Amino acid sequence: MKLLIVGGVAGGASAAARARRLSEDADIILFERGPDVSFANCGLPYYIGGAIAEREKLIVTTPERLRSRFKLDVRTRSSVEAIDRTAKKIRVRDLASGREYEESYDKLILAPGAAPLRPLIPGNDLPGVYTLRNLEDVDRIKKRVDQGVKQAVMVGAGFIGLELVENFVKRGIATTVVELQDQILPPFDKEMTTPILETLIAKGVTVLLGQSADGFEQGSGGLVVRLKSGQRLPTQLVILGVGVRPESKLAVDAGLEVGPRGGIRVNEFLQTRDPDIYAVGDAIEVKDFVSGDPAQVPLAGPANRQGRIAADNVFGRSSRYRGTQGTAIVGVFDRTAAMTGASEKALRRANRPWRKVYVHPTHHAGYYPGAEAMTLKLLFDPTTGKVLGAQAVGGAGVDKRIDVLAVAIQAGLTVFDLEEMELAYAPQYGSAKDPVNMAGFVAGGLIRGDHPQTDWEAIGLTADKPILLDVRTPLEYANGHIPDALNIPVDELRNRFADVPKGRPIVAYCQVGQRGYLATRILMQAGFPVSNLGGGYKTYLLHTPNFNPKD
Amino acid sequence: MKLLIVGGVAGGASAAARARRLSEDADIILFERGPDVSFANCGLPYYIGGAIAEREKLIVTTPERLRSRFKLDVRTRSSVEAIDRTAKKIRVRDLASGREYEESYDKLILAPGAAPLRPLIPGNDLPGVYTLRNLEDVDRIKKRVDQGVKQAVMVGAGFIGLELVENFVKRGIATTVVELQDQILPPFDKEMTTPILETLIAKGVTVLLGQSADGFEQGSGGLVVRLKSGQRLPTQLVILGVGVRPESKLAVDAGLEVGPRGGIRVNEFLQTRDPDIYAVGDAIEVKDFVSGDPAQVPLAGPANRQGRIAADNVFGRSSRYRGTQGTAIVGVFDRTAAMTGASEKALRRANRPWRKVYVHPTHHAGYYPGAEAMTLKLLFDPTTGKVLGAQAVGGAGVDKRIDVLAVAIQAGLTVFDLEEMELAYAPQYGSAKDPVNMAGFVAGGLIRGDHPQTDWEAIGLTADKPILLDVRTPLEYANGHIPDALNIPVDELRNRFADVPKGRPIVAYCQVGQRGYLATRILMQAGFPVSNLGGGYKTYLLHTPNFNPKD
Repeated sequence: MKLLIVGGVAGGASAAARARRLSEDADIILFERGPDVSFANCGLPYYIGGAIAEREKLIVTTPERLRSRFKLDVRTRSSVEAIDRTAKKIRVRDLASGREYEESYDKLILAPGAAPLRPLIPGNDLPGVYTLRNLEDVDRIKKRVDQGVKQAVMVGAGFIGLELVENFVKRGIATTVVELQDQILPPFDKEMTTPILETLIAKGVTVLLGQSADGFEQGSGGLVVRLKSGQRLPTQLVILGVGVRPESKLAVDAGLEVGPRGGIRVNEFLQTRDPDIYAVGDAIEVKDFVSGDPAQVPLAGPANRQGRIAADNVFGRSSRYRGTQGTAIVGVFDRTAAMTGASEKALRRANRPWRKVYVHPTHHAGYYPGAEAMTLKLLFDPTTGKVLGAQAVGGAGVDKRIDVLAVAIQAGLTVFDLEEMELAYAPQYGSAKDPVNMAGFVAGGLIRGDHPQTDWEAIGLTADKPILLDVRTPLEYANGHIPDALNIPVDELRNRFADVPKGRPIVAYCQVGQRGYLATRILMQAGFPVSNLGGGYKTYLLHTPNFNPKD
Repeated sequence: MKLLIVGGVAGGASAAARARRLSEDADIILFERGPDVSFANCGLPYYIGGAIAEREKLIVTTPERLRSRFKLDVRTRSSVEAIDRTAKKIRVRDLASGREYEESYDKLILAPGAAPLRPLIPGNDLPGVYTLRNLEDVDRIKKRVDQGVKQAVMVGAGFIGLELVENFVKRGIATTVVELQDQILPPFDKEMTTPILETLIAKGVTVLLGQSADGFEQGSGGLVVRLKSGQRLPTQLVILGVGVRPESKLAVDAGLEVGPRGGIRVNEFLQTRDPDIYAVGDAIEVKDFVSGDPAQVPLAGPANRQGRIAADNVFGRSSRYRGTQGTAIVGVFDRTAAMTGASEKALRRANRPWRKVYVHPTHHAGYYPGAEAMTLKLLFDPTTGKVLGAQAVGGAGVDKRIDVLAVAIQAGLTVFDLEEMELAYAPQYGSAKDPVNMAGFVAGGLIRGDHPQTDWEAIGLTADKPILLDVRTPLEYANGHIPDALNIPVDELRNRFADVPKGRPIVAYCQVGQRGYLATRILMQAGFPVSNLGGGYKTYLLHTPNFNPKD
């Protein structure tokens, strides 16, 4: 068996190591265009900021290590230029010498990754305008930062973009984020990004939403970013983080099929339409685990597992990739945002029915010091209760709940299963009723009809504008409430039915939804047409934040 | 509907609140023998140590709150003395006045909890000898500690016992732990408790295993604990933490069935043999979720959920309790130990086939600062790969992995599903290959036969003592290795087959198992009779710790 692997970072390196473990006899050649194999992509922003102090920490493994440990023929600075599928050979260009040569294969695994998009606008190649993909990029950016940068502009507010922003701020750089969409972190539902946006603003970051750059100029003191709005941002450093494009040209040129967004098409065995050619990692189109639709999801975890699966199949083991859930997480200063499965907007796009609940628990028992707040949003099928997606934002413990819910989605569990989950509880770690249980209780109750729920976005959509009933204490009400809401504390409600307006639907709310739920139960049983506001006042505030980042 | 609930802490209070949400009309009376309802049991040790500074933090809710919010008739300091099932009434004793009276019921929920065992040995009621169950107990203990205690003896090394020990040490008290078994934290497998034992010893705690107290005496400067070994421990404070016994006398007297360990027998609807009487919480016998056998598992999470389920059934909703997994966690200084599902010893007792793997990853990417080590042990069915249990010990992130695996067990997932789990990865939170994925890879490979594994306990059991082959670097070998092991680094192995002894089985090992796995693959494919030592040298060290706590 002669196996060639194109690309030596996550998926390619995993495939190579796995291949060697499966066969000591195989000839395995790993081609990598860059000088490095298997580096820690996800650590790059933190090397710029200094949290990761030594560059060598970013090197997961070296070509030498791969050679000695896995008996791999590793060829770095080697660009694979073409595939001749009929002759089963590739053409390789040695970037150091310029020499070109051919290499034959029995099986070929493509793991070329994805390249950062560089918008076709004037000045996109000026010195000081960067994209971030590999160690060479990070060296360039870090060098510039080390030379002294006062202002930076991050074009795009995705995961890596915001990680870079945090690290720029930690280096004392005044940073502006320019994002085309009307929210940061586009994979999330907008309201769930509010706490992250608030944090950025609190840290002094300027966030310009709904705006885009249309050019970069060399100014007197450095660069100028021209926005479509006409605004001009002086800066010494620009990072373009507007997405990535699968590196599928090699595959396309070889007549392999790609999807509409450029991802190489593979079957569940990660095999292209040519049975001798597999493809893995950011370059491929995957199946979305929840919707079953084709998707482009560049993530390190799936890339590693795909490499393993492709190697298995190369060596005759039938191994299937089950699709990608899109579990992702980002830390921005002391906040964490994480998600798994479908977002609400993805469900809306797919025209799939869903309901949602929000809970706002603390990450461990409130009576133990250090409990940090989080918001957890759960999306589920309104009939079966099957969990479709989850998002969480907060401090500690966000990662844990999203991981738990990622497994729930993988296993096809329902909100009723969440009610029954038996998670670890001691006061430093969780609560007797974990946030995941709580989300299950609320969602289960919703499906069972125990407490009809009205989502904030639905208020005002109906002709019959409801009465908003704030069931918190007068003090809470005085500290801020939804406009036009009437205040009757839940503990007084049973004695104040006479004060509840008749003839119009009532939407009860409290701070997080729990007292609103009890109020809903009380009023329902007394015959009022009532529902609970999903996630209470805290969710309302996520939807209607108290600031305008465009100001 | 007239519903009486006996016991107002976790299960009882949950049942009462749920009952009210289900029915505004029902008469609901909650009887509690103590002065408090719904307090934070799990926080009690931390109040003694001072981490929880204010006593009122321990009060989850008050009788007044339950009255005003849930319209409950809450009767504290009220002891339910008898149940007349025929007449459907109970006899209540008001502990304040001594008055006795009867109360009739349509439905009755028993949530009396479990009482700490007080071994029948001389002096067990001397002043200074305590058990810990409720706020009155914690007040007594804290008062004594506040008055000045130099030495304390903890009898029993269970979860709450070790939490108390930590808090005593933080108060500057020289503490000795006396445990009858040959390990601390008896629900865990012994080797997994080694890091916790090491921590206790490092913090100056004296741990006496395989020993028990046979009496307490009033000495000149305080108390003396007499051990069966003859040893005498001078002390000013003794806590008895040797387990709990279900408070099932009321149920037994009423002719309800209890199990061999005293737990009230209930069906899946949490109904006793009397269809009008339900029972929940620490007082009941539950079904072990993994084995299906009856078990006694006193945990706050299940108690709360059971309260909810019993209330559902009382009000005509068919709600089932699925059994208890025994997910539990304990923090001891900066270490965490957690488990879910079956332990290895439970599987051995049940005579159920199993295999196990150990992995020793860090809790997040090693290249990001602050990565903390953990050991994760996974137990699974050797044929199907179904996950049967998991235990983890280490620093940060232990709770997350056990929660993920608790869901895997709940969902009936296999080790092959663990390989595919898509968990959240950014360098501060996890790894592209999460510890749970890693455990899945190792276990999956074991079942697939990719790498035969020998467990440490099995070495020496065979007539044919194997060659131990240490495939780490010479430096690692020099720093400590298994006696009689031969050192050939994995990177040299392919060129040194001649140095590998023939004619005897080989057990390869490295630090954690990964290089041992590669060595096993290399040697297998070269025709050697080889296996990998499960979990490598680190697991060996857990089994054969470098200290003797009895010294």
